[in-house]
Amino acid sequence: MNTDPAMPKVVATVESLRREVAAARRERQRIGLVPTMGALHEGHMSLVRASNDECEFTAVSIFVNPTQFAPGEDLDRYPRTFEADLNKLAECRVAVVFAPSAEHVYGPDHATWVEVDRIGRRWEGEHRPTHFRGVATVVLKLFNMVGPDVAFFGQKDYQQAALIRRMVADLDVPVEIRVCPTVRESDGLAMSSRNAYLSPGARRRATVLWKSLCLAREMVAQGERDADVLHRRMREVIASAEDSRIDYLALADPDTLEPVEQIDGPTLAALAVTIENTRLIDNEILHP
Amino acid sequence: MNTDPAMPKVVATVESLRREVAAARRERQRIGLVPTMGALHEGHMSLVRASNDECEFTAVSIFVNPTQFAPGEDLDRYPRTFEADLNKLAECRVAVVFAPSAEHVYGPDHATWVEVDRIGRRWEGEHRPTHFRGVATVVLKLFNMVGPDVAFFGQKDYQQAALIRRMVADLDVPVEIRVCPTVRESDGLAMSSRNAYLSPGARRRATVLWKSLCLAREMVAQGERDADVLHRRMREVIASAEDSRIDYLALADPDTLEPVEQIDGPTLAALAVTIENTRLIDNEILHP
Repeated sequence: MNTDPAMPKVVATVESLRREVAAARRERQRIGLVPTMGALHEGHMSLVRASNDECEFTAVSIFVNPTQFAPGEDLDRYPRTFEADLNKLAECRVAVVFAPSAEHVYGPDHATWVEVDRIGRRWEGEHRPTHFRGVATVVLKLFNMVGPDVAFFGQKDYQQAALIRRMVADLDVPVEIRVCPTVRESDGLAMSSRNAYLSPGARRRATVLWKSLCLAREMVAQGERDADVLHRRMREVIASAEDSRIDYLALADPDTLEPVEQIDGPTLAALAVTIENTRLIDNEILHP
Repeated sequence: MNTDPAMPKVVATVESLRREVAAARRERQRIGLVPTMGALHEGHMSLVRASNDECEFTAVSIFVNPTQFAPGEDLDRYPRTFEADLNKLAECRVAVVFAPSAEHVYGPDHATWVEVDRIGRRWEGEHRPTHFRGVATVVLKLFNMVGPDVAFFGQKDYQQAALIRRMVADLDVPVEIRVCPTVRESDGLAMSSRNAYLSPGARRRATVLWKSLCLAREMVAQGERDADVLHRRMREVIASAEDSRIDYLALADPDTLEPVEQIDGPTLAALAVTIENTRLIDNEILHP
């Protein structure tokens, strides 16, 4: 635990976390929560700043949640940059950083899971069957640990944000969910902790995700309404990148994530593409 | 909605409920919740009194939760005695009765379920596969709606109480769970809203549940340690009642509900028996 006054206070237990939050509550401060898995980039920092704008007290959790990784996924090699993360957070107003161990978060007899049907089953849910159950469970746990008034998520993980909105509505969790715009590199690549896995060549080719979304946006703006046509053109853009494989590419209702055939209103375009061995996701809302 | 000042205040929406609780919170009152499905009997009233003993503010929910009934179960004929329930509650100190409609509790797009592995899979969970998912989900929703400091459950539904304890621990729900002793009729039958289904003959025969538990308690007190022997003797008692069918009969660890073969410490004896068409449950802790 660091004691440098310029650095945010770090706590590792629910008890210490609740003590910090309770003190802020007594002073009638508004509590914001930014849940992260660390490896912080500008996308995360935009969430912290959004919380700073709205809340007197911002809690940031840094926890690489094992239950949202399937066996064989990148849990072990997921980037862990704790000291650098704290240095970044020191530039914002962060009241407390919650960085627990996996053993503290999940007891040995843990048996309870939050499952979100429909939204949680498609796309990421289909390719990573236990992923969203891990996400929903840990996010609900964090909500219960902190008791925030507001929690902040990035649009880059659109399906995750939709799932959390659904869970919060369905379980009557007393928290407001804010979804903040995706932050992008100068060439359009959505910021992601997993971008660190990309080789220089793969990094260059990774721009095809955003290029395909821009193409779809442009086509819809110019009058294209046929989802099949958009699909085809987007696939061509992705295929132009060597060693790329589409996991899914969807045009869907932005609330229910149900696929659409015609672009009749705002439509979510979402995709997951593996380039070399790195799986990337991105999305954009298309406005006809 | 009644306006009689002697009667408890009844609210039907989460918004009104939260307004009542927030007012009490501001006065630093301790909030107790007694979740019920109505058809209140002395078992429920003992929970209300336990809440009164510990909390300045007692909320009682009356909600026949459809998601814990399987198709073909007794959702439609489950006893509904709302006026009588309010009259009983008027004798205690109940700050608010929450009596929502099913449509208010479950939106049309409800998709989120709380599943508790292990404890939730056996016994009732085996015989009623979606029962506990409905229970866990609605109880978590009620906790989120009310935000109680303490919630009160009856030992009669031992497995349900164990499941809720597990869920609360696993999801870090900031509530304390109290489990109050089973209240019995003078002949030992555990009070239950479903006792109303029993014909006079079945009502007389229904005492075999408690008789079998008393026999097990007695045998253990006198030195019997073999679970098989206890099983056999308990089954004989149940079988002595005409038209009775055992759904399950278990001797198990009181925390994990794992079956035991030897009675080496406090042991839960739990059973479900259908007499005529009415399914009854009961349980007792055996102390060697």
